Amino acid sequence: MNLSSEYINFIQEELRQLDIPESPDNLYSPIGYFLSLKGKKIRPILTLLSAELFGETIENSKHAALAIEIFHNFTLIHDDIMDEAPLRRGQQTVHEKWNTNIAILSGDVLMIKAYEQLALCPPDVLPELITLFNKTAVEVCEGQQMDMDFETRDEVVQEEYIQMIKLKTSVLLGCALEMGAILAHSSQKNRSEIYQFGVNIGIAFQIQDDLLDLYGDGAKVGKQVGGDILANKNTLLSILALSHANDEQVKELKRLKSEKDTVLKINSTKSIFNELEVKSKCHQIMQDYYQKALSHFHAIQSENKTQALLDLTQALMKRDF
Amino acid sequence: MNLSSEYINFIQEELRQLDIPESPDNLYSPIGYFLSLKGKKIRPILTLLSAELFGETIENSKHAALAIEIFHNFTLIHDDIMDEAPLRRGQQTVHEKWNTNIAILSGDVLMIKAYEQLALCPPDVLPELITLFNKTAVEVCEGQQMDMDFETRDEVVQEEYIQMIKLKTSVLLGCALEMGAILAHSSQKNRSEIYQFGVNIGIAFQIQDDLLDLYGDGAKVGKQVGGDILANKNTLLSILALSHANDEQVKELKRLKSEKDTVLKINSTKSIFNELEVKSKCHQIMQDYYQKALSHFHAIQSENKTQALLDLTQALMKRDF
Repeated sequence: MNLSSEYINFIQEELRQLDIPESPDNLYSPIGYFLSLKGKKIRPILTLLSAELFGETIENSKHAALAIEIFHNFTLIHDDIMDEAPLRRGQQTVHEKWNTNIAILSGDVLMIKAYEQLALCPPDVLPELITLFNKTAVEVCEGQQMDMDFETRDEVVQEEYIQMIKLKTSVLLGCALEMGAILAHSSQKNRSEIYQFGVNIGIAFQIQDDLLDLYGDGAKVGKQVGGDILANKNTLLSILALSHANDEQVKELKRLKSEKDTVLKINSTKSIFNELEVKSKCHQIMQDYYQKALSHFHAIQSENKTQALLDLTQALMKRDF
Repeated sequence: MNLSSEYINFIQEELRQLDIPESPDNLYSPIGYFLSLKGKKIRPILTLLSAELFGETIENSKHAALAIEIFHNFTLIHDDIMDEAPLRRGQQTVHEKWNTNIAILSGDVLMIKAYEQLALCPPDVLPELITLFNKTAVEVCEGQQMDMDFETRDEVVQEEYIQMIKLKTSVLLGCALEMGAILAHSSQKNRSEIYQFGVNIGIAFQIQDDLLDLYGDGAKVGKQVGGDILANKNTLLSILALSHANDEQVKELKRLKSEKDTVLKINSTKSIFNELEVKSKCHQIMQDYYQKALSHFHAIQSENKTQALLDLTQALMKRDF
């Protein structure tokens, strides 16, 4: 990902140059803090790469890219409150470092700041950009609500799980990419293809997350292996397991949810997953979304020969197992 | 306020016709619930009246009016969480009826829904509308943060208190009115005058709130008389009292903050306020802002002879003492 480090620096520098007032300090310090946390900046980079693919300059597309990144940060601050997460990007979350009220309000301001960036986009494409952005923003909230709803449900079926991850994370990738196409005044067909590319890559990426949690290299992934099983989280692995398990396996999987011995809990659950060949089934579904994404990418009509988007995509999907 | 009942019904009907999906239920039920609560709908009516004043139709200005009203509802839902308020408009607040996470997220969606309405405004004025809206929205959040900060401070001076109420509530009235002028393609001068009219009316109105809390007719105002004193809230009354009190009175006012006997607490504090003629001082400041508002109104250059805005303003300011 050498290509992206340039873009990451560009986005980080633009974020640093945002006009964040000093007062009220309790409102703006959290915003400055959160925006300065290191991140992969995938979403704004997608907007920049897409704009370039369709023939628009980085300079003319940077405000849309920043809108996407700032909106994403708003969702993280509010999600962290709801998930009671202590850490984000290795640092304290806003509600932990300050308090919940400050996290609510600084998140709110960040959302408005995203719209401030949108308003700086070229007026001729502003209505289209804002309509897509609004639709996506609502969907992201719907996905978060579905995710919270799933936490208290015993069973979630594959279709609704995919719908949840699509809304919660994938549509924002699609939106980031389509905004590049809108800025470049590209065709409706290209807008639609690049959007679908993003959404399907996003779904594949999230499924990969589920796989990596249990089958990844803990050291490289940076998380405890089997964390999702420990947290009794519904993932595509657990959903596939339950849908293929016989009565006895279902009973055992449910019993293991209250198993106190963490090593036994992970190993026994994984052993049933292995009997049911859940890993390869999950991998196949991920591959299907990845291939679907690529077919949309190849359907794009553009004279630009840029490989940058595909390179980024492949780099994202080649995480360690 | 006969005039406004027509407008209230219009706004309520438009809100009822908003496309609120059914699922996820935990996200959209609170939104439907909150939007259906009865309210005075002052802000959207200001937009409609201002648009009419400058020669634009209600039909062409309704989306901007709805944006203002929906944004206001978003702020109420989030403010109620922060203030731990059990009731709003006589009904349970969203975080009480559901929970805090649901209140955060449904508030977030409402803010996006406000921008959805904005996006439906005429494209030729959209950049100006959205720029003003964003600026105002950020200011409202700054005002809320200042208000929270003041809660934990012993002393607040008059200028910063006025600045807080200006940001927290008055700029949204100015924004509502200026949006009407923008929609009607009115001049920069008219835009500025109607905005200043709204901001100054808003400040006068908030000061009136402080006065009514202690000197109003409890039955008519619908609140406990002296509630602000009981809650040790900084208001213009308490700020004026502290700034005019001698050392002994300051000491007594501070001691009364921890007085357990509620009747004694209110009466003794009020008695010092009376010695210091705080009521008339406060009333004078309110009148100054009201007169300032009217002078901006009279500076507006418009051929329309509508008295509606002035009538509404006067009705608002003639609450019972």
